[in-house]
Amino acid sequence: MNEPAFINALRALACDPAARGLADDAAVLSAPPGALVLTHDMLVEGVHFLSGDPAGDVAWKLLAVNLSDLAAKGATPLGVLMGYGLTGDADWDAAFVAGLDLALAAFAVPLLGGDTVAQPAGDARILGLTAIGTSGAAVPSRSSARAGDALYVTGTIGDAGAGLAIARGGDGVAALLAAYRRPQPRLAEGRLLAPLVTAMMDVSDGLLIDAERMASASGLAVEIDLDAVPLSPELRALGDGRAERIAAATAGDDYELLFALPDGAMAPVAATRVGRLLVGAGLTLVDRDGAVPLPTRLGYLHTA
Amino acid sequence: MNEPAFINALRALACDPAARGLADDAAVLSAPPGALVLTHDMLVEGVHFLSGDPAGDVAWKLLAVNLSDLAAKGATPLGVLMGYGLTGDADWDAAFVAGLDLALAAFAVPLLGGDTVAQPAGDARILGLTAIGTSGAAVPSRSSARAGDALYVTGTIGDAGAGLAIARGGDGVAALLAAYRRPQPRLAEGRLLAPLVTAMMDVSDGLLIDAERMASASGLAVEIDLDAVPLSPELRALGDGRAERIAAATAGDDYELLFALPDGAMAPVAATRVGRLLVGAGLTLVDRDGAVPLPTRLGYLHTA
Repeated sequence: MNEPAFINALRALACDPAARGLADDAAVLSAPPGALVLTHDMLVEGVHFLSGDPAGDVAWKLLAVNLSDLAAKGATPLGVLMGYGLTGDADWDAAFVAGLDLALAAFAVPLLGGDTVAQPAGDARILGLTAIGTSGAAVPSRSSARAGDALYVTGTIGDAGAGLAIARGGDGVAALLAAYRRPQPRLAEGRLLAPLVTAMMDVSDGLLIDAERMASASGLAVEIDLDAVPLSPELRALGDGRAERIAAATAGDDYELLFALPDGAMAPVAATRVGRLLVGAGLTLVDRDGAVPLPTRLGYLHTA
Repeated sequence: MNEPAFINALRALACDPAARGLADDAAVLSAPPGALVLTHDMLVEGVHFLSGDPAGDVAWKLLAVNLSDLAAKGATPLGVLMGYGLTGDADWDAAFVAGLDLALAAFAVPLLGGDTVAQPAGDARILGLTAIGTSGAAVPSRSSARAGDALYVTGTIGDAGAGLAIARGGDGVAALLAAYRRPQPRLAEGRLLAPLVTAMMDVSDGLLIDAERMASASGLAVEIDLDAVPLSPELRALGDGRAERIAAATAGDDYELLFALPDGAMAPVAATRVGRLLVGAGLTLVDRDGAVPLPTRLGYLHTA
């Protein structure tokens, strides 16, 4: 698929008038009152997805990881702009467009514009997406947790990490693979939580490293109860010891919401209390047997 | 420079409170009333810039080409998000950050956020930028020109094309090289023109191909007077015949504004009348000697 053909295929997905049929220099939309929330995340083949991952799932993930950042701000998506690198594989491109169509419909988000470029043959695919959203008066940050707050997380942790192992050829059930390939941004939960939390972020690199980041940004320490980390039945079936729980809490790609609430406050969404924020600095890990030595790797490492 | 070091270097450029110190999941800004204008353009090494182009100039160009799209909408930039591929060349990265700092200051645009990823060694660098702007009530499109309108262009045409030849090792003066490496988006002109034009776009792929696109989007024909195409003294010094004028009008990378005005209306900015829009379809080229056969290539070709 060449660049004009690819843009024509995208055009069918860009029906919102703000997209101007992908035929103009820019997208033009009227913003509702309130704050604008903007994020841009990229996926690189071999780093953020596997060469063998289905193109439609990569499209889903590209959208979902950006919408997850909006969810962490309690925002409602207004639209997205995509940056796409063509590498000369027409089947992959067509499957990507079909997957993007599905994902945009699933989250009711319009494609507003973007750019398509040619990458040299053999280069790792690079995909970028900018998501813009609108939020109410309360826009949480990750830096405003308070000492004494309880720390919660939505959903379950570690499924995507186990799914990645399956995608790499390991054994496991479809639900875990789906958690890796089709993450579900917590947009509805984010909107409900935004006015109540003292701090919120999404879990993208691993529960432990992201909790440590929230604590550090807030000038606090954090203690996590490893036994409280919510694991799915599918994941527990693979083992439920300390090692497996540490693996789950450091795997990343969960795209759940991690948030702090004043002690005693009630979370307005289904969520699990996993720890607390304290005066001090650093991360402490405990379980039923007492203090747990910190693993060397707290989450996904950006070592580039 | 690894990813944390690069992000730290960028942090010094992201002083706007909306950027949240590049330490949060997303940028948060309050939108002024009016329309929002959004664009995302990418640069690929070897396609949109040369491997030997100075990194600081590449940063300038990445910002300028996106702001040029905002200019075509008469928009004022609110900020940008950058997607950056690290390829393991710390000197290049440092020079890029310095150039970006300079360019952001030159156009008074805040860096709001983005993403940094690792590209495999040897891959062509990929850079993306999303620009968001705000515009008044009138937001021009490229599809609303009317038969009988006069077609104008700001500045001069072809300098960047000649500059590219210099960057590739040819002879020429510094002003032409600067036109290629440091394009100047016509933001002020765009704001003045937006309420008056019937159609407007920026000239990125070449005057002829972009004029043909405006005509086609508007359901019209366009006639261009090759003798009227404004050439700089520096470019004319290299030759001013039909062949040189066609080369200038098909070279691309000009980032001037191309706009249509009702016949007899006065352009509120310095600009040159280069042709007119007519009932019909297609592009016609004339000069003092009469009809000019169309060149095979009307502008930069997206053949990927």
